Amino acid sequence: MSEETPSPQSSYSTNWVGFRPEIKVLDCTIRDGGLMNDSRFSDDVVRGVLRACAAAGIDYMEIGYKNSKKLFSPDQYGAWRHCDEDDLRRIVEGEDLGGLQLCAMADAEKSDYKTDILPREKSALSMIRIACYIHQIPLALEMARDAQDKGYDTCVNLMAASTVQESELGAGLDLLCQSGARAVYLVDSFGHFYTEEVRYLVKKYLIHARPHGMEVGVHMHNNLQLAFANTVEGIVAGANYVDATMGGLGRGAGNCPLELLLGFLHNPKFKLRPVLECLQTHIDPLRAELGWGFDIPYMITGLYNRHPRSAIKHNASEDRGNHVAFYDKVLEDY
Amino acid sequence: MSEETPSPQSSYSTNWVGFRPEIKVLDCTIRDGGLMNDSRFSDDVVRGVLRACAAAGIDYMEIGYKNSKKLFSPDQYGAWRHCDEDDLRRIVEGEDLGGLQLCAMADAEKSDYKTDILPREKSALSMIRIACYIHQIPLALEMARDAQDKGYDTCVNLMAASTVQESELGAGLDLLCQSGARAVYLVDSFGHFYTEEVRYLVKKYLIHARPHGMEVGVHMHNNLQLAFANTVEGIVAGANYVDATMGGLGRGAGNCPLELLLGFLHNPKFKLRPVLECLQTHIDPLRAELGWGFDIPYMITGLYNRHPRSAIKHNASEDRGNHVAFYDKVLEDY
Repeated sequence: MSEETPSPQSSYSTNWVGFRPEIKVLDCTIRDGGLMNDSRFSDDVVRGVLRACAAAGIDYMEIGYKNSKKLFSPDQYGAWRHCDEDDLRRIVEGEDLGGLQLCAMADAEKSDYKTDILPREKSALSMIRIACYIHQIPLALEMARDAQDKGYDTCVNLMAASTVQESELGAGLDLLCQSGARAVYLVDSFGHFYTEEVRYLVKKYLIHARPHGMEVGVHMHNNLQLAFANTVEGIVAGANYVDATMGGLGRGAGNCPLELLLGFLHNPKFKLRPVLECLQTHIDPLRAELGWGFDIPYMITGLYNRHPRSAIKHNASEDRGNHVAFYDKVLEDY
Repeated sequence: MSEETPSPQSSYSTNWVGFRPEIKVLDCTIRDGGLMNDSRFSDDVVRGVLRACAAAGIDYMEIGYKNSKKLFSPDQYGAWRHCDEDDLRRIVEGEDLGGLQLCAMADAEKSDYKTDILPREKSALSMIRIACYIHQIPLALEMARDAQDKGYDTCVNLMAASTVQESELGAGLDLLCQSGARAVYLVDSFGHFYTEEVRYLVKKYLIHARPHGMEVGVHMHNNLQLAFANTVEGIVAGANYVDATMGGLGRGAGNCPLELLLGFLHNPKFKLRPVLECLQTHIDPLRAELGWGFDIPYMITGLYNRHPRSAIKHNASEDRGNHVAFYDKVLEDY
């Protein structure tokens, strides 16, 4: 061996062998996956995910949206777009949740939160996640306060961070970190970030969050096949709230796969086997119909920092598979 | 904005906007993909990949193996397992290769290199890549010398690096860096490495390679959906030779997708469009038959640092889709 060889003390195997007990894993399979099927999951699938989360030691299961029935009609959308207490109860009754807590997402301007979110003691939910774009932060703060007053834990998810100018981001984080939420999330809605950007931004979020006793979370999309890598990078940079979904089920290119995340986390409370079982029983059979996951049109919207809706449209059109046509169109519209 | 906000000078957008002109991209679609179909690609597909590589500004196309006809019978294996000059000429004749150079891989103990590799002036190839396991390094050095004496550029690929003890790795690198090759490759044959391990190992390889004027290359597999992320990490750590394949085509979970890599590299000599065109015309139609790409059995072999052959076998069996059965078996055999 040459003299320059790093010493055994610097061996590369030491860093990931342990674990950080503060890390909370949030499964949002049904919530984010609901964007691919108008939240029309069967009770069987939702209960399957719930049982797998409980058995796998997951901290939170986000079971759906608290969205407005005026904007999202129950005729068109399934139960998990509204998460009525009757529906929640039908699923959780008689189940052994262990340490698993349930949460739901309320979108700014899409939720009748004042009436639809009941006091916590009347709900199966224990946490509300408020999702907003940068211009909706004042409303998000009101929503977070409303949920906290009703007794819930809260998180705030600032969506589409890759489209926000850095100076505005700082101002937005200053406000969000006065929300009293448990965590503020870095959300890569468009699947645009490279790993070094995630590292930089998580550190930036932490600078804002830590003085207020808040944690930072990460929610990544797979347009550049980086959802898992960016989630790991977020963890290494200090994020303690981590989103993932079974099989990566989620809008467009999908999310960080829970099975990869659990393989990486070495906290013995997490178990991989129940997730594999749920995958083969409940998630894999949905693939053909829902059609999420990495493909070239999602790569192109990720690369050019666009909402995936044009790729979803392309994939549903007769031009599906014509990558060059989609690429030319995106560049033309640039 | 709070006072702690990083200054605009440290803005996260600055690092990847430029490019490093030394980086050489090597397309190994036909070579690595040949492990999924016994190298039986039609001339049409091979010519399609060649034209796309030339038009996209790729530096090297690895068109196949220089493997022994005694071990790999031409009755069973296609032309790209042996890369006879007649076959090469049939593909390249009349093509405008621009700056594209052709190479082939010779495996230690699987190649009749002395007779089958002709002098460079009689060949369409300009580089030979020698692939070996740690115990085959002395043979690999002989093979590299033979190719160099015949006038070729060479690279040396040390396979399955994730199974090599670090002290042996140092000794192996010391030898390989006396080979006179252009580059020594970090090869993650089992798709086992996390990103931080890649960073550590590329730096270690560089410590050995640089004093001999050699470069470091990276060849990654996608078992943990990290092939692209680890390739980028390798580049950031200093690797200047980078392998990728169109659509990630390759053994098992596949390789770093060339289309993602070109989206990341900002050298204007690289063009994405010809690769997208080749994907839709030649590569996508192979998906159903060849069946490469991330799935749960490959994730499990990657996680537990195993050769993907048991996962390939599982996927070809009637137990395909039964992730739990495969997981239990791998743990039982641990």
